[in-house]
Parts: sequence; structure tokens; C-alpha cells
Amino acid sequence: MNKPKQLRRLISSGQLEFIMEAHNGLSAKIVEEAGFEGIWASGLSISAAMGVRDNNEASWTQVLDVLEFMSDATSIPILLDGDTGYGNFNNARRLVKKLEQRDIAGVCIEDKQFPKMNSFLNGQLQPMADIEEFCGKIKAMKDTQTDDDFVVVARVEAFITGRGLGETLRRAEAYRKAGADAVLIHSKRPDFMEIEAFMKEWAGRLPVVIVPTKYYLTPTVKFRESGISLVIWANHNLRSSIEAMKQVSRRIYQDESLAHIEKDVATLEEVFRLQGAEELEDAEQQYLPVSEIRSNEGI
Amino acid sequence: MNKPKQLRRLISSGQLEFIMEAHNGLSAKIVEEAGFEGIWASGLSISAAMGVRDNNEASWTQVLDVLEFMSDATSIPILLDGDTGYGNFNNARRLVKKLEQRDIAGVCIEDKQFPKMNSFLNGQLQPMADIEEFCGKIKAMKDTQTDDDFVVVARVEAFITGRGLGETLRRAEAYRKAGADAVLIHSKRPDFMEIEAFMKEWAGRLPVVIVPTKYYLTPTVKFRESGISLVIWANHNLRSSIEAMKQVSRRIYQDESLAHIEKDVATLEEVFRLQGAEELEDAEQQYLPVSEIRSNEGI
Amino acid sequence: MNKPKQLRRLISSGQLEFIMEAHNGLSAKIVEEAGFEGIWASGLSISAAMGVRDNNEASWTQVLDVLEFMSDATSIPILLDGDTGYGNFNNARRLVKKLEQRDIAGVCIEDKQFPKMNSFLNGQLQPMADIEEFCGKIKAMKDTQTDDDFVVVARVEAFITGRGLGETLRRAEAYRKAGADAVLIHSKRPDFMEIEAFMKEWAGRLPVVIVPTKYYLTPTVKFRESGISLVIWANHNLRSSIEAMKQVSRRIYQDESLAHIEKDVATLEEVFRLQGAEELEDAEQQYLPVSEIRSNEGI
Amino acid sequence: MNKPKQLRRLISSGQLEFIMEAHNGLSAKIVEEAGFEGIWASGLSISAAMGVRDNNEASWTQVLDVLEFMSDATSIPILLDGDTGYGNFNNARRLVKKLEQRDIAGVCIEDKQFPKMNSFLNGQLQPMADIEEFCGKIKAMKDTQTDDDFVVVARVEAFITGRGLGETLRRAEAYRKAGADAVLIHSKRPDFMEIEAFMKEWAGRLPVVIVPTKYYLTPTVKFRESGISLVIWANHNLRSSIEAMKQVSRRIYQDESLAHIEKDVATLEEVFRLQGAEELEDAEQQYLPVSEIRSNEGI
Repeated sequence: MNKPKQLRRLISSGQLEFIMEAHNGLSAKIVEEAGFEGIWASGLSISAAMGVRDNNEASWTQVLDVLEFMSDATSIPILLDGDTGYGNFNNARRLVKKLEQRDIAGVCIEDKQFPKMNSFLNGQLQPMADIEEFCGKIKAMKDTQTDDDFVVVARVEAFITGRGLGETLRRAEAYRKAGADAVLIHSKRPDFMEIEAFMKEWAGRLPVVIVPTKYYLTPTVKFRESGISLVIWANHNLRSSIEAMKQVSRRIYQDESLAHIEKDVATLEEVFRLQGAEELEDAEQQYLPVSEIRSNEGI
Repeated sequence: MNKPKQLRRLISSGQLEFIMEAHNGLSAKIVEEAGFEGIWASGLSISAAMGVRDNNEASWTQVLDVLEFMSDATSIPILLDGDTGYGNFNNARRLVKKLEQRDIAGVCIEDKQFPKMNSFLNGQLQPMADIEEFCGKIKAMKDTQTDDDFVVVARVEAFITGRGLGETLRRAEAYRKAGADAVLIHSKRPDFMEIEAFMKEWAGRLPVVIVPTKYYLTPTVKFRESGISLVIWANHNLRSSIEAMKQVSRRIYQDESLAHIEKDVATLEEVFRLQGAEELEDAEQQYLPVSEIRSNEGI
Repeated sequence: MNKPKQLRRLISSGQLEFIMEAHNGLSAKIVEEAGFEGIWASGLSISAAMGVRDNNEASWTQVLDVLEFMSDATSIPILLDGDTGYGNFNNARRLVKKLEQRDIAGVCIEDKQFPKMNSFLNGQLQPMADIEEFCGKIKAMKDTQTDDDFVVVARVEAFITGRGLGETLRRAEAYRKAGADAVLIHSKRPDFMEIEAFMKEWAGRLPVVIVPTKYYLTPTVKFRESGISLVIWANHNLRSSIEAMKQVSRRIYQDESLAHIEKDVATLEEVFRLQGAEELEDAEQQYLPVSEIRSNEGI
Repeated sequence: MNKPKQLRRLISSGQLEFIMEAHNGLSAKIVEEAGFEGIWASGLSISAAMGVRDNNEASWTQVLDVLEFMSDATSIPILLDGDTGYGNFNNARRLVKKLEQRDIAGVCIEDKQFPKMNSFLNGQLQPMADIEEFCGKIKAMKDTQTDDDFVVVARVEAFITGRGLGETLRRAEAYRKAGADAVLIHSKRPDFMEIEAFMKEWAGRLPVVIVPTKYYLTPTVKFRESGISLVIWANHNLRSSIEAMKQVSRRIYQDESLAHIEKDVATLEEVFRLQGAEELEDAEQQYLPVSEIRSNEGI
């Protein structure tokens, strides 16, 4: 089953599914080996790994290059956190074309304003994309994809920007009508209230995706009960690697030695295994002629 | 002090110095914050992070793009593991030019054959670069650099490829005469014997760099006593991040929840801090006009 | 004299100067060899050469890669047609940083809305950037550059979008106050009227740059008389190469032979010369060991 | 018919076919519009357009990026001048994978040594790749391709490097046995003698491709009579564009005006047409909401 089809099945399976963040080929492979059936290519994580901010500092083609390595390293589908589509409908449909070429299974675009043009005083609402323009963007993406299974998720930022349930429902419905394959409803609350209220009204019209980073203490059974389709564990590989690297860097700096940390880090053999060293060794046996270098050469 | 000068001072300080591996902007920043005075841009780590093998699968310009992010994120010097210079003298000098443009402080090139053209039966010696050709490569690099302080380290693979002390000394001396700023003597032994023997004969002619990954149990005092200039902790950030990501991915997969792992990973605030979020917030205050969005917009 | 300083001198020389379009390393070199003192890296030409439209279809880093080749191939300054700065002030200042790293001498940004969010009926005015926001963008760019001579040109699209002299002057003055080193006043009229009216009111407050593509029949002496500082010949290398390639492709297709066209195209020696083949041949003599391949090898 | 299949049919058609050089999206489109059924992505032309030498100065991924633009702009197949495959068998098979992802129809690799390690005195033979190693490279490429029609052409440089007909036949036959879909026999003679002699002995075992740049006065009928399958017009778009740009740059520099050259260059409308402007205008009508900007805005 190809990757878009895998992702489509995941989103439409009727039960609660999970995908995990990765930010490069290595973390993508680790996510697959852990048993996950899909990868979330997080904009925050990819930019943080590069050392820049998640504000379009890296260009969309620099992100695309990372995605290509991630896709090459894995056989499970990747859903890209595609920001706002990196521009207008034309940029978004170009993005879809390039993602399909790199065997990325789907993309999530959000309805905030791009780029940020104003700073905000307390109490002001951050601007959102014009609904009609965003729907045009979704339509253009759906019209462009060549694989019918390629997934477009529309992320509604209405709760995040301080608007209410009404605006969230209004936008989610418009995006559904425009052709979105799923909607991602995001919330910053430390509880499930906003999403739960949405799910009650939404009544299963289209698969719903959530990112429970802020409300991580909500028992997963609640997600199941309210009919969520897909949960994204959004940035935990990045965050665990930060913690680990800070510790090992500090320890080695202080110890001026590797003696104490070797047991706490993956072995070199594990690195080679993750890279696929065995496949290359076999291939070298198959495709390279045996050397005829005389053993006393160079002495 | 600019980065090449920082690196030159590190290598010529007369005391034992340490640099630490990083493979992207984030790990580079972590290395700097841990207190290190230099970064080792490891070919193994950069390729592993991408999910490919350390066999020129990623192109040299793909590596260059990673280096640019690393250099932008840090103020301490970066020494690149520059493989064989990615080709002949012309490729190597082009590499120097591009590294200088991205404020990379130095590069280490090794004298193995590029690319691998034969597979080897047991007992056969893997081919090394022609000494004269490698010296020409070093000369071309030194003639090309525009900043006098840019550092070229010549890595001698004679011990690694089964040749002995004589070949190692012969090559190191030739590379020194050709203009190398330091030599990196690599050994796969689990002890310091090969390097120690070399240091005795070498008698401090030029700074020596080592990568004690395999002989990690050797007390650092031995490195000091034999007159080593620079120790490279070659791949431990990569390896610690692998271990951490495997664990967190597995745990979240099994738990189907984030509840238990939040305390074990870096906070989102820490991610934002590492990205430099505060600087951007200040800049937004400075450069963006205050919004005039009416608070009832969008309802 | 470094490239930013060369460009600054060109713009502030007090006499009418000219720069010529190029879209890759080759055309940049040709512009320099023709005698021009500066190169215009035209967004239209660079995108057209790639085969895409001038609507941010190529990412800004893909454009940057082309610029790097252009800068490496020449010793005269390059002024980039930097669209709107590819986003907000933060994207624009990141652009400046990257351009300086690649030795690009200056950038021109325009005050249209990015990206295009609406289609327009006849008679409607296309939206322009908020003046305060655009001024913030200019300030951020000027605050970011490390070389004092790096040039920021603010392009005013008021005439182009159907607004009048008043709006043009208002914006140009605001941008001047914000720190722009020059303003580019663009007009689609087939005559010099709009610009001439502007120049009278502007009274030499800051150097003015024009792109007379549409009013190409205006005698150059009129530009001098009104006090224009810099004329950009904006796309003629691209357009001449299109004409030439269409003709030679058609002729060779019909002839099924090269016999008749050899005399009409540059020689291979000329191609090698433009590439700098001689320098490499000399370098090979200097840095490569002489071969010892026996003459009967391979037979 | 997909692009690899188109190229395979071209090579196996049984009659003499022609493909034409292009070096970017624009020239690729021009080649298609001229009527050609295939495009030759010439290494010399692509590097010259960038302003560098055809000696692996641009990385293989930088070349790949150019190819992607070329493939996006056209519907006819592209055959890449793939140098030596950019390394060993592993680099060559990775190249095939990446080319397929970008819908490139085939690649031609040559049997010279990579990279150039020696300079040569007169009379010395330049080294060629080890036959067994080169055959392993071809096998690895054929084993890697996922589309059965993807074409691998093996280019034999024996004549070019001063060896004779015997070596040429020996190598061509080995490469045929290794799985090459065609062989490219190159000659620097100003006549067809070497190739003609080869064709007599080769007796149609496998399609033969030629690049008659040096023997351009040979009547095409001779190619047909000797059974050549494909002729590559290798660099004439590049060379005609050089000539045209030199002339227009010089003329505009001297005239300080566009008045005299407008008639000699393609119109702006032609540029927009080649870029596909009409498609975007239609798409904007379809996907963007109509503007509501009041006509008196901004005055």
C-alpha cells in the first residue's frame, strides 16, 4: 500500500490513531521502529533542529529537502506541518506537487495570516486568513494532487486566536465543503473542553485531528469517546533529544572524558544499523570488484 | 575574535583542548551552551541525522547547507569533518571557499581513496590517497583561503588501514610540509598505543588532533602528557539523542499518552529559548506596526 | 573596493549610471565583460530561466543559490530584485544576512502585497503594503547589515497600481526617512511623464533608480536631465537568449544538422574561456602530480 | 506515455532520432516547442550556465535541482549527462533513484576516472575506469530503477582518450552485457571515421548514441546509413544564447539605450507565455476571492 493510501486509511479507520513527530531522517526511522504507523513532520521541530525559529526562517524548499531525507528513510506515511501552505493558493498547490514527488503522504495547512504583519497588544485578536481565500487554497491543492489518496488537513486556529466555538465550527465546515480530508482543531487550553465542545457539534462530519501537547493530562480514552480520528504527538522526539544532548554535553565537558557516558548512549553499531550499513556492505560485495592491492603497498 | 582565529588559538594553545560533535543548528547551540570552545561537524553524525550513510550519499552542498545553519546558530568555531575534500584538489579548494563564506573556521580532510572502488578480502590493505596528490590538495586549500587563520587539518588514516607507524610518520610529515595546520592521527585500537608511539617520534612538530572514540577508557591525562593539542568527542550528541528518542518514542507508543514523559523531556519554553524566540519578540515590537484589528473581528 | 562599496559609489556618483540584467553565472559574466559596472539580478529573468513564473514559485533560497553562482563568477556588484523581501521584516533581514554572506552588494524590495490574495476586477486598485509596515521592514534591513555600504533600494509601486503622484511621493519620502539608500520609481507608461513629474517634486532628496523597459524610446538624455541616478536594463539578456535559442533550436530541428549554424553560435573555446578553463588547467599543473600511467595501459 | 517510456521508444525506434541540449527550464521548454522529442541535459551546458567548469564544481544535487525545473517545464523526456555517476556504484544508484523521483527519463554515465587525479604530459593516456568496476556501476543502476523503461546509456571514452577501436569494442560489449540500454561512442575526430569503424563491428547489438559536435560537417545521412539510433545536439542552445547575450549587452552598453535592440529580442509577452502566465491568471480567477479594495484606498 503506498504512503498516501496508508495515511488515508489511518485517518479514516474509525478508531483512534496516533502519529509521532520527527524532524529528520534519523528520528523518522526511530518513529517507525517504535511501531507508529505515521510520522508528523513538525514545523516547530524541523526549524528548531536547524536552529531557527518556526517563522518561515528556513524556506519551504529547505524544509522540502529535510522531508525528502525523511521519506527516503521510512516506509510509513509522513504528514507535513505545512504552515499556511507557504503563501497563497499557487504556493500551496506547488507545495502539493513537490510533496507528491517526494512521496510525502499529506499536508496540514493552517488558517492564520502569513506572514505576521502586526504586533499585538493584549486583548487584540490575531488576524486569521480570509475564509474564502483559504477555501480557494484547499480547492487548489485538491485539484492539483495526482494521487487521489494524498491527504489535505485543514487546521483551524480559531480557538488559538481567542475566537470561540462558533467561529471554529463555521470555518471547519467551510473547509470541509472546500474539500479538506480532515480538520485539525487546535487548542491551548490545559484541558479538553474546547475540543470536546467542538466534537459534540461536529457530529463526525469529517475526521478530526488533534495535537494534545497542552492538554497532555487528558486521558486518551476521552479522545476515543469524543470520536477523534488522529492524535499527533507533536514534538517529543525533539524535546527528548534536547534534554539528552544537554546532559551528555555537560557531562563530557565536566569529565573531560567519555569513560562515564558510553553506557548511556547508543552504540556506534546502533548508529550504523540505523543508517542501513548492512545493505551497503552487501551491495559492495555485489557490485565492487575485489581489490588487487598488494599487501605491501604503501610501506 | 573571529571564528577562524578562535580555532587557530584553540589548536595552538599549547594545552589540551576539547571540541564536541554537533550535527545541526540545535546540537551546535547546545555544545556552545555546555561550555565548549569549538564544534566538530562530524560527517558520520550529519549523515546519520539525515538518515543516510557516511559514504557521500548526501552531496557536499547538502552538508554545506547544514553547516550554514550550524554557523548561524553559534559564536564558537566549527571544524568540519570534510571527508577527502569531496574529490580532488579543485573540489577541496572550492570547499574551502564555500566554508569561509559560511564562517566555518576550518576543515579536516583525510587521506583515504575517494570514492571506494573495491571491496576487500581479509588481509588486504584498503588503498590510501597518493601522497603527492594529497599534498597538492592541502597546498591548493591553503593557497585558496582568504582568512589566514582558516585551519586545515590533515587526517592520516595509515593506522586505520593497517599500515604502521612508519607510514603514519611519513605521511604526517609530508602533509606538514605541504602546509597543514595540524594533523589528526586516527586509531581504532582500544588503547592509546599507536598514538603514543607516534607522539614520541613526532616530537611536537605540529599540533596533533585525536578522536579517542575507540580508546575512550584512556585517561585524559595521558593525552596531556603526550602533548596532544586537541581532542574531538566525535559523535556523542548524536548517540545520546538516538537513545533518548528511541526511549520516548517507545514509551509514548505504549502509553498512548504524554502524561508520563513530560517531565523527562525539555519544555516547550526551552525549545523556544534555544531557537532565540525572545530576540524575535523584541524585534517584532520594534519593527511591526501595532495592530488595528478590531476585537470583534471574525465573530 | 569591495562590492557593496562599488554599488554605493555607483548609486551616489552624481551622474547617470547603468546596470544590466543577468539571471545566472554565465550571463552575469557576460554583463561584466561588456563593460557594465553592476548587475541587476532580475526576479523575472531568474524565474523565467528556471521555467517558472515570477510569483514566488521558486523559493527565496533557490534564488539565493543562483545569486551565489552569479557572485562567484563576477567582480562587479550585484543588486538583487528582492521582491517584497519574501515576507515580513524578519524574512527581509534574514535575506540581507544571507546576501551579505554571498557578497551580493544590495537588494531592492517593493511595496506590493505579499502574496497575492485577491483577483481584481477592472478598475480596482491592487493593494499595496502598509506604509508603516514597509518602513519597519526597511529599518530592520538597515539595522541588520554588517557592511555599512550594503545598499537597500525601496521600490515604490504606486504608479504601477494606479495611484498617483501624491501617493508615490508620500511613500518615497517615508521610505527615505526609514533609511532606504535609494528609491526605485516604476512606471508602466510608454513615456517618461510619471517619473519626470516625480523627479521635479523629489528634488534630489535621495538617489532615484528607474527601469525604463516600458518607456524604452525615451532618450537617455532626459534621464540625465531629470537627475536620475541609476538606470536598470531589466531583462534584455534573457530576452535575447530566448530569441537566439528559439531560432537555433528550430533551425537544427529542420536541418537535422549542425552544419549551417556553427558559424552563428559561440565556439566551444569561448564557452571554456567564459568558464575559466585556463585557470583550472594552470591549477592542475600546479597541484596534480604528473601521471605515471604507462602508455600501453589499456590496450 | 510516461517520460521513460518515451525515451526508450526514441532509442529503440529503429530510425535515427535527435535530442537537443538544454540547461534550464526555459531552454528545455524551447527545445520542446521546436519539435524535438527529447532533451539532453548537458553537463557542460548546465555548468557553463552556472558560471563554473564542467569538473564537478557544482554538486550533483545542485545539478538535480536544475533538472527538476527542467522536468517540470516540459512533457518530453530528459536524458541527463550524468558524468561518471558522481562517484562509485552507490552514488550512481542513488542518482538513479533521485532522477526517477524528478521524472527524468534516463542518464548517461561515462567511463573516465573520477575525479581527475593527475596531470598529463603529451603522449600519456588519460586513465579510464576499471571495466569491472564500471560494469558493477551499470548493474547497480539497472537493479535500482523502479520504472523498467528508465534508460541507462554507457558512454565509452576510449577513442577520446587515445585508445583504439579494440578497446572501444571491448568496453562497449562489456557494458552491454552489464545491462546498458545503449552505448554512446564519443569521438573528437573532425570526421566520422572512428564511429563508422565501430558501427561496422558493432553490427547493431544495442542502440548507439553519438554526439557529433566535433564532426558536425558529416552529413546526417551517413549516421542513418551506419545505423546510429540517436544523435545528440550537445550544446548549441547554450552557445547561441552566449552569442546573443554578448551582442545585446555590448550594444546596450554602447547605446546607453534600449531603443535599437527591442526589435531583436523576444517580447515580454513571449517571456510570460513561456513561463505559463496564462495558466496562473486562469487559476487566480478560479481560486482567489474577488477583491473588495475600495477604489479610493491609498489616495
